[in-house]
Amino acid sequence: MSGSQDNSVGIVKPQRFDHRDTFALQSGQTLQGFSLVYETYGALNENKDNAVLICHALSGNHHAAGWHSAADRKPGWWDQCIGPGKAIDTNLFFVVSLNNLGGCDGSTGPNSIDPATGEAFGSAFPTVTVSDWVKSQALLADYVGIQRFAAVIGGSLGGMQALQWAIDYPNRLYAAVVIASAANLTAQNIAFNELARQAILTDENFRKGDYYADASTPSHGLMLARMIGHVTYLSDNGMDNRFGRDLRSGDLAVGENVQFEVESYLNYQGRAFTEKFDANTYLLMTRALDYFDPARTSNNNLSQALADVTAKFMIVSFTSDWRFSTQRSTEIVDALIASNKDVVSAVIESEHGHDSFLLPLPRYIETLKTYLQCLHQAHCTSDSLAAEA
Amino acid sequence: MSGSQDNSVGIVKPQRFDHRDTFALQSGQTLQGFSLVYETYGALNENKDNAVLICHALSGNHHAAGWHSAADRKPGWWDQCIGPGKAIDTNLFFVVSLNNLGGCDGSTGPNSIDPATGEAFGSAFPTVTVSDWVKSQALLADYVGIQRFAAVIGGSLGGMQALQWAIDYPNRLYAAVVIASAANLTAQNIAFNELARQAILTDENFRKGDYYADASTPSHGLMLARMIGHVTYLSDNGMDNRFGRDLRSGDLAVGENVQFEVESYLNYQGRAFTEKFDANTYLLMTRALDYFDPARTSNNNLSQALADVTAKFMIVSFTSDWRFSTQRSTEIVDALIASNKDVVSAVIESEHGHDSFLLPLPRYIETLKTYLQCLHQAHCTSDSLAAEA
Repeated sequence: MSGSQDNSVGIVKPQRFDHRDTFALQSGQTLQGFSLVYETYGALNENKDNAVLICHALSGNHHAAGWHSAADRKPGWWDQCIGPGKAIDTNLFFVVSLNNLGGCDGSTGPNSIDPATGEAFGSAFPTVTVSDWVKSQALLADYVGIQRFAAVIGGSLGGMQALQWAIDYPNRLYAAVVIASAANLTAQNIAFNELARQAILTDENFRKGDYYADASTPSHGLMLARMIGHVTYLSDNGMDNRFGRDLRSGDLAVGENVQFEVESYLNYQGRAFTEKFDANTYLLMTRALDYFDPARTSNNNLSQALADVTAKFMIVSFTSDWRFSTQRSTEIVDALIASNKDVVSAVIESEHGHDSFLLPLPRYIETLKTYLQCLHQAHCTSDSLAAEA
Repeated sequence: MSGSQDNSVGIVKPQRFDHRDTFALQSGQTLQGFSLVYETYGALNENKDNAVLICHALSGNHHAAGWHSAADRKPGWWDQCIGPGKAIDTNLFFVVSLNNLGGCDGSTGPNSIDPATGEAFGSAFPTVTVSDWVKSQALLADYVGIQRFAAVIGGSLGGMQALQWAIDYPNRLYAAVVIASAANLTAQNIAFNELARQAILTDENFRKGDYYADASTPSHGLMLARMIGHVTYLSDNGMDNRFGRDLRSGDLAVGENVQFEVESYLNYQGRAFTEKFDANTYLLMTRALDYFDPARTSNNNLSQALADVTAKFMIVSFTSDWRFSTQRSTEIVDALIASNKDVVSAVIESEHGHDSFLLPLPRYIETLKTYLQCLHQAHCTSDSLAAEA
């Protein structure tokens, strides 16, 4: 963790929202209610206009900032960005962060018990789309007492949710911050997701998704899926600067052992991931990414799809991000301009590829912080209560 | 096949070279002899100075041009380039093309019978390097009666062999043509190879490489390995132009079925590959790619590694090839210039990524043809016999 405890939100405790009504999904399927696990940081002001929603990406969860216990080895996944005095300043904002529907960290997902059968959903869990997430997040907002977010913020798949929020609930957010994202995936991006899916689907332990009652899970497939993702979230130059052609052993050795440092790193990362993530959720998340395409129902005209948006936008991309390139961000910026919306765009020089959005890169953090401070001054009526946070 | 039968080498028949002596490999391991399957096209002239060696890439083999029978659905893998009047003109050159040691198309490889045990080598097959291949190819050249090649030509891993030839046997080639290649792999490139390897190694049917006697082979792993390769051999734009976000079904459907055209294509390509390739050979080839690094023993100074080279060079790259980028070709060009060698370099505009080197792109084919014609005029003493081919 960078910095001292002074700029941490400290120990946080996950909370739970239970939606008990039938929930209709975009696919036509339904869920007989669901639960979402979430955390909040900072304090909601009197006028309830300083709330910020954090939307997570493929492998994220509700634990975006702070620590669950003093014994934790790592803080939340976006702790670099969220806390007192940080870019998403909890002295100013009341931050809400949830585990998405279909997740594997406590919200209802494939690994949850299906009330209809008393067993884990597994393959019976419905397809979930970005629109479904946004709809479930709006129900969570109702529950927490937030009519309108000051901002909905997300990177990658999280940025798609921010964009969808602006389309589906124009009156319920003041701004959308879309980082390292795109208005839909390219064929190459879909292809990489398909590689990850095939790794899981062809694992002998996958058993069509119904593996929860078994001793073994599709961990090889999930490990490989994560490794594929990991390589594509880094940049060629970034990897060369970090690993180069360094060998673990001194010279060319015989056999199939891991020998280059980059291989060892990827294998370690892949294995570690299998201890905290679920293969069915991985499939579900990649499908949501692939399906996302708000312009599809507007003649593939993104500007037309954004016609009724009222939110102000900030669009951020990173120069070396080749899975969600600056070009894809620029398409969103251009569509917003074409439909006469307010938009700030920032292209951040970075060699860290798609992973940049999770890193404490000074130009990125400072840009985000400045924008959100300005937004707070323009939009939020009071921050007196926030000082207590 | 493009063009008429007139510019085909026609029906060709694989031949076989048996090396019966012990063959020492770079790893320190040995083989008690080996066989190489090869084909030739065109005719060797009287002075035996018009021979060209074709080195294949990861999934290639000896069948580079022509047809094995009138019933074949496809000609050899580089038929676009090799034939009468083509870039590698069999009216001028005597072309030799082999299946590399460790291959799975007839040359001694992991799927061959190990004379020591009477069973397939499998996991007992030694590690093979680019230098080992070049050494075995030199033995093949001796057998065919070629003291000095007019050119050694290869794309990708084949280009690495051409480069190694120039280093290891400076007196045995007049020119090296290195296409879409690099003097070593980047960390990202090694990482993609490692993903492919992990796909195979974690397939339950891999059984540490000893699967030949079993009913099942690691076809899922090999399929996925090929799919990973395939995505990275194409370019983002090329895939978008070819597949875009086209759906196989008309709309967002529920479930895990293949739905985007690009997924369907990749799955088909991956499956087809498993019917003609061997997983152990795939591992061996990717390892040879990773290990290749002729500058390593010259203080990582490529120019120094090339100091004793006498061959003329042609270096070709393609603008959208991100696995073997133009930058990597330029490093070779610069090292050759720094050590005062003859080098022609060509960067070909193409949206087809690494696959470009196999495609009939007019600017590429014309460049290669012009260079080789010039080389023939400068180097080859007679072409009277070639007219009979």
